[in-house]
Amino acid sequence: MRKKIAVLPGDGIGPEVTKQAVKVLDAIARRFGHNFVYEEGLVGAAAIDATGNPFPDATEAICQQSDAILFGAIGDPKYDNDPKAKVRPEQGLLAMRKKLGLFANVRPVKSYKALLPISPLKEEIIDGTDFVVFRELTSGIYFGQPRGRSEDGKSAFDTCNYSSDEIIRIARLAFDAARNRNKKVTLVDKANVLATSRLWRETVQELAQEYPDITLDFMFVDNAAMKIIQNPRDFDVVLTENMFGDIITDEASVIAGSLGMLPSASIGTQQSLFEPIHGSYPQAAGKNIANPFGAILSAAMLLEYSFKLIEEANTIKEAVLQAMDEGFVTEDINKKTALSTEEVGDKVVGFI
Amino acid sequence: MRKKIAVLPGDGIGPEVTKQAVKVLDAIARRFGHNFVYEEGLVGAAAIDATGNPFPDATEAICQQSDAILFGAIGDPKYDNDPKAKVRPEQGLLAMRKKLGLFANVRPVKSYKALLPISPLKEEIIDGTDFVVFRELTSGIYFGQPRGRSEDGKSAFDTCNYSSDEIIRIARLAFDAARNRNKKVTLVDKANVLATSRLWRETVQELAQEYPDITLDFMFVDNAAMKIIQNPRDFDVVLTENMFGDIITDEASVIAGSLGMLPSASIGTQQSLFEPIHGSYPQAAGKNIANPFGAILSAAMLLEYSFKLIEEANTIKEAVLQAMDEGFVTEDINKKTALSTEEVGDKVVGFI
Ligand SMILES: CC(C)[C@H](C(=O)O)[C@@H](O)C(=O)O
Ligand SMILES: CC(C)[C@H](C(=O)O)[C@@H](O)C(=O)O
Repeated sequence: MRKKIAVLPGDGIGPEVTKQAVKVLDAIARRFGHNFVYEEGLVGAAAIDATGNPFPDATEAICQQSDAILFGAIGDPKYDNDPKAKVRPEQGLLAMRKKLGLFANVRPVKSYKALLPISPLKEEIIDGTDFVVFRELTSGIYFGQPRGRSEDGKSAFDTCNYSSDEIIRIARLAFDAARNRNKKVTLVDKANVLATSRLWRETVQELAQEYPDITLDFMFVDNAAMKIIQNPRDFDVVLTENMFGDIITDEASVIAGSLGMLPSASIGTQQSLFEPIHGSYPQAAGKNIANPFGAILSAAMLLEYSFKLIEEANTIKEAVLQAMDEGFVTEDINKKTALSTEEVGDKVVGFI
Repeated sequence: MRKKIAVLPGDGIGPEVTKQAVKVLDAIARRFGHNFVYEEGLVGAAAIDATGNPFPDATEAICQQSDAILFGAIGDPKYDNDPKAKVRPEQGLLAMRKKLGLFANVRPVKSYKALLPISPLKEEIIDGTDFVVFRELTSGIYFGQPRGRSEDGKSAFDTCNYSSDEIIRIARLAFDAARNRNKKVTLVDKANVLATSRLWRETVQELAQEYPDITLDFMFVDNAAMKIIQNPRDFDVVLTENMFGDIITDEASVIAGSLGMLPSASIGTQQSLFEPIHGSYPQAAGKNIANPFGAILSAAMLLEYSFKLIEEANTIKEAVLQAMDEGFVTEDINKKTALSTEEVGDKVVGFI
């Protein structure tokens, strides 16, 4: 199989971990006789520094000409505490999502045996956790208009909006995923307060009639924020809007014990994008200590979702499990015997 | 001291737990020679059933003529999954907040030694946790206009807005509270995405100059949702807007091990309101099994915040701790030796 992959390393630890993911993809290509061609693009603070634009047109073109996109991370603290900064790296991320139509962020949440001791949650609570969150990614309060300041600057406003088409599009993916899992979808919303949430409930309830084999239930977001910690095993497929998804996916990521473990897919109307969820983690940048598993498992999701290369994807997942079992991990998982980012990448390649 | 207290038991377990709180207030009145006069009002589903209005004018009048308000809970499942219900009990809660100007919800989050075994979090993570969340309660996306549906019904919208005055008002309370605590305020927002969050940052940053003894830091809400579970001891005073506060206070409530433990205050422009955070918990209603500590500790907050009766408030807190130490608790804390709601209330009264 010959495929073009856009590679956007981005900021912070993005470049280091993306490099390991590419190494792993190369190993897969060698073993299974595929041909992956990479093209790199600038994004985030790196792109602002070089071009003034966090998602330059050239990068957009590279993405559009690719079959899938491998992404590192975006964000630089020098922009965070400056409320007046005109261009922020995150705008690149949002522009990218919007322009590429990446409407569904898919985040598996899993407990790993080897990580149970480092989770802040008790083992008996999390052991066996296995759910997946579908977060809407191109609408809601992230993009709604109008947004901004009043003329005197003394008040500010944001708009959350959703159309039923936007809801149906991602809800279908969630129901389809539930079919291959435990057949349960939980819609997380705030229908007791928000008009948009009531549209979500109505729309999803209606769509559910096409999926009589799937159980649909509803949960208010505040309640979900509790239940995810109290009974993470109760979830199968979680479906939610953009802002709530941002919060509960990050919350859920704590279950695994290390943020560095978790991959994600952002499903697009044309091509999809794959990234570890950990963000740019600037404190670790350039130190060769960041956990590359999230990026490597994102490459596995890329093979599975975009190229339907299931065996290849599983080979990567097994190699990661093996590396973990043999203790070949970075310092976030085991301080005492930690390997470097590069070394862990090499071990995974070795197992492939 | 002679004081008028409005009592709004509300729905579900609200009446049962509120009754215990009143019993405890009576015991305090007897012991310290105060005179508390109660007036009951209808609210929530109970009020809809009786009057068609979840926050009737008569109830508003009772509140306005009182020195403080003791509140139970609101919510009935028969309204939850009906997206077209015209009147919902929660509207009573929101109307009450708005009409009484309850602009700041204050929620202490504490770990209790006796509850460490039942928390889903590991003891070494939560032992010693002691922070307080200040959640804005009368603005943001809960109340912003416009909100509703497009004409064809196929899209919906909500508006989040904030004025700097609304922000300053609650931020002052948070900074003042930090002065009596560990002198740290953490503003939780989404300033990398929302215009309203950037106004919060700007406004709070400016106000902080009046509090040079207080450390102010900023945290994105997604990150906060992780950190609250990973390092709850790192927080002192958390300040946030309405929707984010709804989510992270409920998330944080899991730390204690039982939702039934936690009290809250909603500070008003005239009088303030005090309620356990647990909600109406309909499954337990009428069974005499609900944990009354949250309601009882809310009564303690009432004495402290509204009447400045510090010794009296501490007497209640100590009585609750003693009841817990001696194992006089409801089934959420100890299934095997559980007492009833009434019995636990009586034990606390006994210790006073
Ligand atoms: C960086 C930020 C804009 C982004 C978001 O809020 O979507 C991030 O938190 C994420 O979840 O990918
Ligand atoms: C019932 C609901 C409207 C309410 C809220 O969202 O504020 C509740 O969750 C709370 O936190 O008091």
